[in-house]
Amino acid sequence: MSKLTEAEFESVDGILKKLPPDDYEKVRRVLYGNETSELELPEKAESLAKSFDFELASCKFNCEKEELRAPRIVRVGLFQNKIPVAPTEPLIKQRDAFHKMAEEAIQTAAAAGVNIFCFQEAWNMPFAFCTKEKLPWTEFAEPAENGPTTLFLGQMAKIHNMVIVSSILERDEIHGDTVWNTAVVIDNHGDYLGKHRKNHIPRIGDFNESSYYFEGNTGHPVFETEFGRIAVNICFGRHHFLNWMMFGINGAEIVFNPSATIGGISEPMWGIEARCYAIANNYYTCAINRIGTEVFPNEFCSGDKKPAHKEFGHFYGSSYVSAPNGSRSQGLSRTKTGLLIAELDLNLCRQARDKWCFQMTQRLDMYAESLQRAVKLDYVPQIIRK
Amino acid sequence: MSKLTEAEFESVDGILKKLPPDDYEKVRRVLYGNETSELELPEKAESLAKSFDFELASCKFNCEKEELRAPRIVRVGLFQNKIPVAPTEPLIKQRDAFHKMAEEAIQTAAAAGVNIFCFQEAWNMPFAFCTKEKLPWTEFAEPAENGPTTLFLGQMAKIHNMVIVSSILERDEIHGDTVWNTAVVIDNHGDYLGKHRKNHIPRIGDFNESSYYFEGNTGHPVFETEFGRIAVNICFGRHHFLNWMMFGINGAEIVFNPSATIGGISEPMWGIEARCYAIANNYYTCAINRIGTEVFPNEFCSGDKKPAHKEFGHFYGSSYVSAPNGSRSQGLSRTKTGLLIAELDLNLCRQARDKWCFQMTQRLDMYAESLQRAVKLDYVPQIIRK
Repeated sequence: MSKLTEAEFESVDGILKKLPPDDYEKVRRVLYGNETSELELPEKAESLAKSFDFELASCKFNCEKEELRAPRIVRVGLFQNKIPVAPTEPLIKQRDAFHKMAEEAIQTAAAAGVNIFCFQEAWNMPFAFCTKEKLPWTEFAEPAENGPTTLFLGQMAKIHNMVIVSSILERDEIHGDTVWNTAVVIDNHGDYLGKHRKNHIPRIGDFNESSYYFEGNTGHPVFETEFGRIAVNICFGRHHFLNWMMFGINGAEIVFNPSATIGGISEPMWGIEARCYAIANNYYTCAINRIGTEVFPNEFCSGDKKPAHKEFGHFYGSSYVSAPNGSRSQGLSRTKTGLLIAELDLNLCRQARDKWCFQMTQRLDMYAESLQRAVKLDYVPQIIRK
Repeated sequence: MSKLTEAEFESVDGILKKLPPDDYEKVRRVLYGNETSELELPEKAESLAKSFDFELASCKFNCEKEELRAPRIVRVGLFQNKIPVAPTEPLIKQRDAFHKMAEEAIQTAAAAGVNIFCFQEAWNMPFAFCTKEKLPWTEFAEPAENGPTTLFLGQMAKIHNMVIVSSILERDEIHGDTVWNTAVVIDNHGDYLGKHRKNHIPRIGDFNESSYYFEGNTGHPVFETEFGRIAVNICFGRHHFLNWMMFGINGAEIVFNPSATIGGISEPMWGIEARCYAIANNYYTCAINRIGTEVFPNEFCSGDKKPAHKEFGHFYGSSYVSAPNGSRSQGLSRTKTGLLIAELDLNLCRQARDKWCFQMTQRLDMYAESLQRAVKLDYVPQIIRK
């Protein structure tokens, strides 16, 4: 299938809706789980999205009322975007364009009542790691605590009373000028709350990111915000169950997965993984992917037998939210910049845990012991032979 | 949605195929992954399936040719079935009917060239655990090593040169007459090779199986057969990633998941979990679910607010195979007894591992240590507060 065909259709959901309504409902129930509804968003949010020319979609998950706990309603905003200007433009122009785009997205999210906003991976730069060139791309790296992007987003967060999760390239000036792939969490008062560094780094085709940064050394932090306990599983970490699991063990109720991934590689896995791990850990997962095709100034090769090329391939977006019970939202477009607003009741996490009892039945002590044995170099696998 | 509607449609795949071919292909690629093909099965297999009145479907996964390893082609057969006679019939009549049905299925599988055959969970009895009654249902329990079902299947296995995985209720007469939920592996010479006991037991609505048996004590064995290294993750264990992972660590190339699950509970998760864990562990997974509605002689209640009832609900079948790269077969019917033949090249496991490098990047030592800490009662979660 050609790249053009890959890019040109809008969404799986859009195609499924061409089915007769009765058939659609049967398929929808099996493929998407419990019914969800759209939110009634303020007119202002709709008109802002329209004026900035991005898709605006919404989803509300159902949750039972409890007698002893009040509902714990949170609105999250997932923003997926194309790069606003070409990677060949001066860096300062690129950065300004990213910040302007972010301001528009956050303003729209605020109008839609969003409490926690999350960007895609490395949102404020082109995804240049395919090139393996250091300069100019590592110039985009900034201190997590007080770099220009964090300071800019701090202002936005304070104005709009919004927690912002910002996945960027970090420069750690104190520790040997090392570069990291880092998610920064800014609280709703505009203050830096903390950071998490990507735990698992891919070496696949054009995603040979290990030229730039090392596996994260910040563990599995959960950030206690005024709107709930959140964590960030950055991109390739979504393939690693234990990464998801440790965020759950540490108390996460929502795990964001800011990502950058292209059609030729991962698309059939995209709808499976973040959703499966929402089910397994009984928390909400928010998977956010880039949009569009990025073209770099110089050719690069990527160990995938393709001739040298300047084009990364099509980032297929399709950002979505999964609930702790396995139901999911529809996906954003495969081709357009967009904002997905989802209303979550955090009480659903514990309700799903009580119903499915995965935590009670998981026998974690047995596995802690099994893994301790399995990592030893002289581990003998349990194999039964005749 | 009424139970009738749930049961009455044949399959999601069947509905998707009503889409225009071009749309279908786009959706298929995203939902099912790399293209697969049907096998050309011998006429004899087709005519046997027809004469026994069950569905016969097939799938072949693509795999690259290697220069230094020959292909390692295996055909697996997944059999999903209704109970052949009512649970109100005398037990001996029920057992005979199950064995007759098994003989038909295995004969058909043999005609289709199957090397490894697997049944659904507790295939030789009604799924009576919902009743919480002990007699007569525990009479179905047999010694894994030499009970009547194992002896019967041993003959079948020898005649047809076929490995058979038989998920049954086990009676351990040596250890206090305890009952277990056990998968028995019989080798292609008809000999008992070993057994595995279900590691994770549900307590959900009508699936309160913990009245009958305890969590398994046989670890995570991998069975080395002439056709490849296989393991069995029984039913509820499919929700437990660490269970899947330990089979992978011990060297499994194919993991069977004999199951029994109904539409109201798990259907939206069914296509997600076994497939996600095939991706995460880069092995084949074979998920097999029951078919039909079973009606028991006495009413039972199940803690799910429904009035007392005699009917379990609709087991929705939909058995399928996932490949180590995330592509999957179509599902068997939601309503009919059926046999799915899949041709696998086991070389694809290592190819997927080399491509995705999940094993290299998984940092298992870090997680072994994290879990050791997490299971301690005084574990303090890593939470970042202002």
